[in-house]
Amino acid sequence: MTVPTDRTRRPFRMDEGVAILERTPATLDALLRGLPDGWIHAHEGAGTWSPFDVLGHLVHGERTDWMARVRILLEHGETRAFDPFDRFAQFAESKGRTLDSVLDEFAARRADNLAALAALRLSDADFVRRGRHASLGGVTLGQLLATWVAHDLDHVTQISRVLARQYSDEVGPWRAYLRIISGEQG
Amino acid sequence: MTVPTDRTRRPFRMDEGVAILERTPATLDALLRGLPDGWIHAHEGAGTWSPFDVLGHLVHGERTDWMARVRILLEHGETRAFDPFDRFAQFAESKGRTLDSVLDEFAARRADNLAALAALRLSDADFVRRGRHASLGGVTLGQLLATWVAHDLDHVTQISRVLARQYSDEVGPWRAYLRIISGEQG
Repeated sequence: MTVPTDRTRRPFRMDEGVAILERTPATLDALLRGLPDGWIHAHEGAGTWSPFDVLGHLVHGERTDWMARVRILLEHGETRAFDPFDRFAQFAESKGRTLDSVLDEFAARRADNLAALAALRLSDADFVRRGRHASLGGVTLGQLLATWVAHDLDHVTQISRVLARQYSDEVGPWRAYLRIISGEQG
Repeated sequence: MTVPTDRTRRPFRMDEGVAILERTPATLDALLRGLPDGWIHAHEGAGTWSPFDVLGHLVHGERTDWMARVRILLEHGETRAFDPFDRFAQFAESKGRTLDSVLDEFAARRADNLAALAALRLSDADFVRRGRHASLGGVTLGQLLATWVAHDLDHVTQISRVLARQYSDEVGPWRAYLRIISGEQG
């Protein structure tokens, strides 16, 4: 991928990162709650995730991953690796649940986690503290928190892309102008 | 682009298309209102659009494009081409405006346009009616309406991608796992 060199970048700042994290549940609620089932369970082929699957994955991260990793890093530094993140847990956990209940759980767990994060009263000086990822090796607290944010946005992108592509045929000749369908990035 | 052959597709249905169209203003409101300016004006380099620019583009479409094209198609069929869509109008129109005012205008104009669309009482039989795009040639009403929907989702995808990539450096080694940053599609 060619990346333009003049694009903007944000340094990680707690207030700016939290501003995204606290908005994701409401964003996905506005996009998905009440949508017809055909949209909620749409996917891009075998092994790809529907909006319902993605939402379950986000809930699993709130349950087991992000704040647990923050605590392991603060308590153990690089001496203890983070527990692995089960990227497929949602298929069992979400089974038989309604979309509404998964949306509600995501909002509640995210709010709890952001309250727990705020209670740690972390400052910029803490962001260089180091922990250990079992596969990636040494990482910093700032990188972990920035990844939590980018991971949210990655999955908002994924959900809207999966939905858009349901109309790949329906848009007819406009396909050429819709980058999400034609496969080109804008 | 290789497209898996077993992915789901939706046929265009008015209720399912409108279900997306009516949610987009609230989705972008939840994602963007109150975000720090650095996020709102983030971009991917020269010639690319910030979330603020994209929102102005969506407003311009509501003002001048989608319903105007529906009406031209219904009144003139293929005898009159649609007016061209100015993809750069937002740079003048949005200049000096607050994000909040653009979000408010998008929600109001979208609601008005969906009310006007409902008042046309279109049925599935109307979706094959034909109009003419100045560059693309003959198109159907169903394709026009499906494109309105996919265009919304294309730009939701774009906004969340632009935001995610602000942390391309900040995520450190996790870059390899974040497809929105590494450039791979999930």
